[in-house]
Amino acid sequence: MREIIFLVQRADAKGLLADIAGFFYDRGFNILDCRQHTDSYAGRYFMRIALDMNDLSTSRNALENDFTGFADERDLEWTVRYSDHIRKVALLVSKTSHCLYDILLKRQEEELHCETPVIISNHPDLEFVAEQFEIPFHCLPVNSESKPEQEAAVLELLLRHHIELVVLARYMRILSPNFLRRFGNPIINIHHAFLPAFQGANPYKRAYERGVKLIGATAHYVTDELDEGPIIEQDVERVSHRHSPEDLKRIGREIERRVLSKALQAHLEHRVIVDSNKTVVFD
Amino acid sequence: MREIIFLVQRADAKGLLADIAGFFYDRGFNILDCRQHTDSYAGRYFMRIALDMNDLSTSRNALENDFTGFADERDLEWTVRYSDHIRKVALLVSKTSHCLYDILLKRQEEELHCETPVIISNHPDLEFVAEQFEIPFHCLPVNSESKPEQEAAVLELLLRHHIELVVLARYMRILSPNFLRRFGNPIINIHHAFLPAFQGANPYKRAYERGVKLIGATAHYVTDELDEGPIIEQDVERVSHRHSPEDLKRIGREIERRVLSKALQAHLEHRVIVDSNKTVVFD
Amino acid sequence: MREIIFLVQRADAKGLLADIAGFFYDRGFNILDCRQHTDSYAGRYFMRIALDMNDLSTSRNALENDFTGFADERDLEWTVRYSDHIRKVALLVSKTSHCLYDILLKRQEEELHCETPVIISNHPDLEFVAEQFEIPFHCLPVNSESKPEQEAAVLELLLRHHIELVVLARYMRILSPNFLRRFGNPIINIHHAFLPAFQGANPYKRAYERGVKLIGATAHYVTDELDEGPIIEQDVERVSHRHSPEDLKRIGREIERRVLSKALQAHLEHRVIVDSNKTVVFD
Amino acid sequence: MREIIFLVQRADAKGLLADIAGFFYDRGFNILDCRQHTDSYAGRYFMRIALDMNDLSTSRNALENDFTGFADERDLEWTVRYSDHIRKVALLVSKTSHCLYDILLKRQEEELHCETPVIISNHPDLEFVAEQFEIPFHCLPVNSESKPEQEAAVLELLLRHHIELVVLARYMRILSPNFLRRFGNPIINIHHAFLPAFQGANPYKRAYERGVKLIGATAHYVTDELDEGPIIEQDVERVSHRHSPEDLKRIGREIERRVLSKALQAHLEHRVIVDSNKTVVFD
Repeated sequence: MREIIFLVQRADAKGLLADIAGFFYDRGFNILDCRQHTDSYAGRYFMRIALDMNDLSTSRNALENDFTGFADERDLEWTVRYSDHIRKVALLVSKTSHCLYDILLKRQEEELHCETPVIISNHPDLEFVAEQFEIPFHCLPVNSESKPEQEAAVLELLLRHHIELVVLARYMRILSPNFLRRFGNPIINIHHAFLPAFQGANPYKRAYERGVKLIGATAHYVTDELDEGPIIEQDVERVSHRHSPEDLKRIGREIERRVLSKALQAHLEHRVIVDSNKTVVFD
Repeated sequence: MREIIFLVQRADAKGLLADIAGFFYDRGFNILDCRQHTDSYAGRYFMRIALDMNDLSTSRNALENDFTGFADERDLEWTVRYSDHIRKVALLVSKTSHCLYDILLKRQEEELHCETPVIISNHPDLEFVAEQFEIPFHCLPVNSESKPEQEAAVLELLLRHHIELVVLARYMRILSPNFLRRFGNPIINIHHAFLPAFQGANPYKRAYERGVKLIGATAHYVTDELDEGPIIEQDVERVSHRHSPEDLKRIGREIERRVLSKALQAHLEHRVIVDSNKTVVFD
Repeated sequence: MREIIFLVQRADAKGLLADIAGFFYDRGFNILDCRQHTDSYAGRYFMRIALDMNDLSTSRNALENDFTGFADERDLEWTVRYSDHIRKVALLVSKTSHCLYDILLKRQEEELHCETPVIISNHPDLEFVAEQFEIPFHCLPVNSESKPEQEAAVLELLLRHHIELVVLARYMRILSPNFLRRFGNPIINIHHAFLPAFQGANPYKRAYERGVKLIGATAHYVTDELDEGPIIEQDVERVSHRHSPEDLKRIGREIERRVLSKALQAHLEHRVIVDSNKTVVFD
Repeated sequence: MREIIFLVQRADAKGLLADIAGFFYDRGFNILDCRQHTDSYAGRYFMRIALDMNDLSTSRNALENDFTGFADERDLEWTVRYSDHIRKVALLVSKTSHCLYDILLKRQEEELHCETPVIISNHPDLEFVAEQFEIPFHCLPVNSESKPEQEAAVLELLLRHHIELVVLARYMRILSPNFLRRFGNPIINIHHAFLPAFQGANPYKRAYERGVKLIGATAHYVTDELDEGPIIEQDVERVSHRHSPEDLKRIGREIERRVLSKALQAHLEHRVIVDSNKTVVFD
């Protein structure tokens, strides 16, 4: 089923559902699915509304212009997505393959609806994976001195491939605020700990030393603040004194790939609304 | 916040959301929350719509008559609930106290919004719990011969206390189809296994013998078919070869009380729609 | 089955199992259960060995003296427990009842093997619970000025009742290092967050503000460092944008009581060995 | 660390630990790890003992002969494994790739210690996966008439490759009792349901129709009785009314691969003892 999906938010007010549903109903749209959330603590309203694309009797531009007028009168923040637009996703990796494989396999199984036109790494180790799936691979090594040039080269690749989303699938370098600003599109990172615990480096080693009984992983949008961006998905697994730091890494890999692919799926299905530093993830 | 909650279902069709939302919007209601589900496999549409009771400008009867006309034209099946109507719930128990305590404590903490005017048991063992919480307790022993008389006595108590929901909080007798028909209101049971595995008696012993690695519990509405009614909630816990049948019982108690109170809460919050032998539980 | 349980640890070395097992075998003991753990990262060896008390042909003192000699030659750190010694546990609470009830109910069900001769609180709110279970209740209010006197009064009660373990069942005051030193016995606390995330006050509010997708609880031994003591047990539950700070508190209560009673059970069953700031919890 | 691992079981008796540990201690072995389990309900004793292979001063044959004498006197059932013996595992598949990929990737990451010299399928669909990992692939189609010949061909491949374990990684045909007897070595199957619920065909469809709130998967040793063999590992995921049968399949794939690889890992690490129709899985 081809769908048009609107994601809407604003300060909470009376009558928003009937009002917005009415807009689409009046234009002949069948509402396939509508999810709402009112955060009464923060006083904000969120909506995801999915329409049948077959009901679109105008151009997409005309629909968007029409809705712009409607939304402006009501101070709605909104985005629209068309399910037949397959987004181009760049995968940035370093040396570990588990998240990369998981995304490539789920794309191959058509669980993740996206294209992956390019894989970029600061190390050559995972070129063989790119070859297994016949995807262009670019190795762009980086150190603290070469970082500006390397980021410029990464950016050039992203632009050349018309990348709309970057997934940091265990890319172990921090992207500069300048890079984030110039790229402009969303970036999803997988952090190998249950944030806000163990922000920063070596979380599994620190988890081992603290003697925690669960370890976790967190997928979040990247912002200028390290490991502080809006959380999309988290999960944990039980561990015990039996597990060495290496065991925690191994168990963590399973969590990381599961969490990252769930977050990516939610993003690709237009189920995520970001509100300041938090997310609404419709399920 | 006092709410009016409509639960609606029908065969799926175009425009139901805008249509129903419009009905309430036209009558001056703010829609506090609206959840829908379309089962595209079964072709059915489900809706839970919560209105601000302060917007009610007519009597409840008038609202219901008004909606009856609207619903009849559209073949809607529906019920309406008012959050200021606190339902009367009878607790039926046998000898084990964990589910009984859990419900009484959650009611005391105001997590469960209901009254519990009567506790009925086929054994005297739990009278002390009823006394701790100052609730009338009736011991009505039963054997296969006395079952019709005992059920008649139970029914009489339910009617006398205007009971609208019965919770079988580990009541270890099967209620007769005749009893179910005469009572007419919903009955929630907790089965101490992950249905449809281990239907019937002694599920923990059978789980032990089969060597399963997880055990569970299931809360469901009671129907004429034993352990076959619509499932409201289920959960499991990990077990291992280390656990004896007694350990499974102990671990199971935690699952049972958690599952039963979640199911009861969903029911009391009007979040459950039954469709033939399945439930839609809005969360 | 009455058991004698030895908990042993030392730097790892060859032959410890056969050596220690041999000690007891030579003295006619049947080893009912023996669990070991080698932390090869830290180079430490841990053992829990359970003996049949019926095989004890000497006095307990004689056994302990005998083992002392054996252990000293091998630099073993060890403790011994006798399962027929039922420990006396004081419960310290403030205003919320869920953890208190859970412990009292599990004791009543004989899932927790301990006595609870006294409940102490800095507020009068939970006296009714103590009355339901006919346990002496002492209300000892405290503010920053009266803290030394209050702690002295608490200590006096603990000594008078021969308390061997204190459980802080949502006691919302920090105990002073002086109190800890003078009491000398273990104290278990339940922290209402997944440590090390959200140490300190108001963890649920901070979890809401950070937009985490799981919330948790942590049971740990109390040390001078706030929320930094050895972790015994942790668990989490999934939450979402739907949940208000109040919902997180409610969901958290279930986690807290489950985590605290698991930790308490492990302690009472002599399954916990503390090694610097971590625990080995045999399951 | 190279290890020698003994798995031992017998009727429970006094002194087994000290006796067996003594056997190895007397022959100069350091016991790296020893796990035991007493099933007091069934009256059976189980042990896994791991020795340092560097301590082996005789041939393996001599050790085994020595232990045979010791074991015969005590009626021990036992097996021995050497960690430097990498077992050869055949993967049988049909059309779905997720379990196959998971095993191949974990082998590549050295999480699973085995060789996979051959992949056999009754369909050609997954040949491309075998090619990605450069493993010989044999397509042996089968129907009810050709089954004896096909099974003979499968068996011939297993023998030619000296296969010691078969993993049915979503192989959708039932192996005949004759095949099982002639192969003689263990076979691990992944069943796409939480056994004993939904034995047999189409479990996800039946789970959907029953309206269960959790779905699961079960890894078990194959026996003559369909889906009745000893369970090694199980797990579940939460589902709801939202999920179509196709969603259940997709969610199930994640569970299946996780459960199967955990079971395979336990088997390869010699942590599983089978006792009649149950398993002891040391963790």
